[in-house]
Amino acid sequence: MFTRHPSNPLISPNDVTPSRPGFEIIGTFNAGACTFNNEVYLLVRVAEKPVNEDKSVIACPHYVNGELVVEHIRRDDPDWDTSDPRQIRHLRSSLMYLTSVSHLRLARSKDGATFKIDPEPWLLPQTEYEGYGVEDARITEVEGRYYINYTAVSMFGITTALVSTADFVSIERHGLIFPSSNRDVTIFPQRVNGKYVCYHRPMPMFGGLHIWSATSPDLVSWGDHRILLSSSESGWMNGRVGGGAPPVLTDAGWLSIFHAADKNDRYCLGAFITPADDPTTIIASSKEPIMAPEAPYETSGFFSDVVFTCGAVVRGDELWVYYGTADEHTAVASAKLQDLVAHVMGN
Amino acid sequence: MFTRHPSNPLISPNDVTPSRPGFEIIGTFNAGACTFNNEVYLLVRVAEKPVNEDKSVIACPHYVNGELVVEHIRRDDPDWDTSDPRQIRHLRSSLMYLTSVSHLRLARSKDGATFKIDPEPWLLPQTEYEGYGVEDARITEVEGRYYINYTAVSMFGITTALVSTADFVSIERHGLIFPSSNRDVTIFPQRVNGKYVCYHRPMPMFGGLHIWSATSPDLVSWGDHRILLSSSESGWMNGRVGGGAPPVLTDAGWLSIFHAADKNDRYCLGAFITPADDPTTIIASSKEPIMAPEAPYETSGFFSDVVFTCGAVVRGDELWVYYGTADEHTAVASAKLQDLVAHVMGN
Repeated sequence: MFTRHPSNPLISPNDVTPSRPGFEIIGTFNAGACTFNNEVYLLVRVAEKPVNEDKSVIACPHYVNGELVVEHIRRDDPDWDTSDPRQIRHLRSSLMYLTSVSHLRLARSKDGATFKIDPEPWLLPQTEYEGYGVEDARITEVEGRYYINYTAVSMFGITTALVSTADFVSIERHGLIFPSSNRDVTIFPQRVNGKYVCYHRPMPMFGGLHIWSATSPDLVSWGDHRILLSSSESGWMNGRVGGGAPPVLTDAGWLSIFHAADKNDRYCLGAFITPADDPTTIIASSKEPIMAPEAPYETSGFFSDVVFTCGAVVRGDELWVYYGTADEHTAVASAKLQDLVAHVMGN
Repeated sequence: MFTRHPSNPLISPNDVTPSRPGFEIIGTFNAGACTFNNEVYLLVRVAEKPVNEDKSVIACPHYVNGELVVEHIRRDDPDWDTSDPRQIRHLRSSLMYLTSVSHLRLARSKDGATFKIDPEPWLLPQTEYEGYGVEDARITEVEGRYYINYTAVSMFGITTALVSTADFVSIERHGLIFPSSNRDVTIFPQRVNGKYVCYHRPMPMFGGLHIWSATSPDLVSWGDHRILLSSSESGWMNGRVGGGAPPVLTDAGWLSIFHAADKNDRYCLGAFITPADDPTTIIASSKEPIMAPEAPYETSGFFSDVVFTCGAVVRGDELWVYYGTADEHTAVASAKLQDLVAHVMGN
């Protein structure tokens, strides 16, 4: 149903300049998306790390009190689990590091496929909750203002922060809207029954990785948390599920594109629909992935077999879903919105 | 500084009738506390389990769709970690069960020490988030109404729910105020700088078990989360910290009694003070426990070496701290409020 754009991948690490000398970019992916001034605006997650010729050590960059420091861990250190290319974990404490540090970079396009990428970061890690990076922005236009939530990672865990802007120049910070561990927050573009609504994905000590709903009077404070979509015991959703693009209102209700991973960390996209007046109840859901890693830039890369969306925009009668591929590139795939809704409703 | 009441423990399992035939009570502890109609009201956590003569199996009671069911797990089953008397964990999945199921029971006292205990539960598990029980109530009087938050445990994890009452008879439910995993929520009795305030204790996949602050416009939706007090690397706080009694306003600021456990799960009480106009900054904190397990009913019991408070009341010039002992009994200890504040401020 989705057509991958012939220019995919649209944005790759080589297209972006590092934020500082001595660093190299390893990922330009998981972009939030919106329409602004008739252009597509992406806030791309740019992951970078120090250039490191010594393959026997892993360099772990992070900020301490606003200064970037690099921890070097020997790849064969028995105290550390170094099997995941994205992060390393200390085996006898709760300490972990990421192997790269991410910031958000603005990219603009008139045709939705050819992007002009800012030479400087749009949002760099700043607070004590962002020491390991800022990741995976989602953009929602609410009442004429653009609200951007993103994953803030630090020694305190994985949290979600919120900023807003009217012009993508001046940025107002609203603090943490979810404490650790929580990510994949998608905010609705309008109130439902008088309340703002979002989906979020707690990462608890036990209980599984499911999509929950919440409501808010002010976009900053969230409550009335409810389970919406559970990861399942078998199949493509048996590892985790999480919100993807902020929901889009259609004739059938709120359409949400989400991600699901199986126990082998293969990430696919699914879709579900909730009624226009009740975002807490799924009325239809894709039983199989609506998109799975198939193209070479999806099946092979920094973290292979991943398609992962943080944003989609409506262009004419189509939905353009921007998505990260293999934790490395940004791509786009489009579908007729009507066909997509019919497909989900038919499940 | 604290004087344990000579009648301690005040409430023990033998003092309470089970909620159903065939069950026995194993714990009456971790009571929320307040003053109502010139009496001390406690909402005691009552933990009960099926009478089980077969010591080779562990009976795990929980609710499924409102019905109580009992799972029996062999104590020597290699698929389960049965080393913790409070819970068992499946070793190859995220499944866990508690070995008892808790409800909340109301107890009343004119003298603060002799309690009349209701024969029936005040709050039984009801929602899908309460299948493993409702635990550890905290009571805060806000603008003439009593708000009770409690830990709701289920297969979806550890969450915090909120109910309120004006008379302790009629109960209004406000849903989940924190998704999994989060507990030990203490709500302030009044707004500070126009916002309600609470402390809470997320239990993330990584990042440690610390006390965070949050603010709310309506007591249901919470945001602007900030780290307040970290568990430390060594000593009595090196396992976890969490909120205890809801904060009490004193001349020196907000006084909070919290719990801390070391890596051996020995639970002590500490105290800290935050300014009256800024609950997000600690100005003084006890460097050593203000109370540690010493009395026989604290050092020995269902889960030994535990003192754990969920509520304190001001009586004259004293603070009476109600606390659970060894996950089994309810006790009280009192201190001159002025002495306690001076002690914490002197640290």
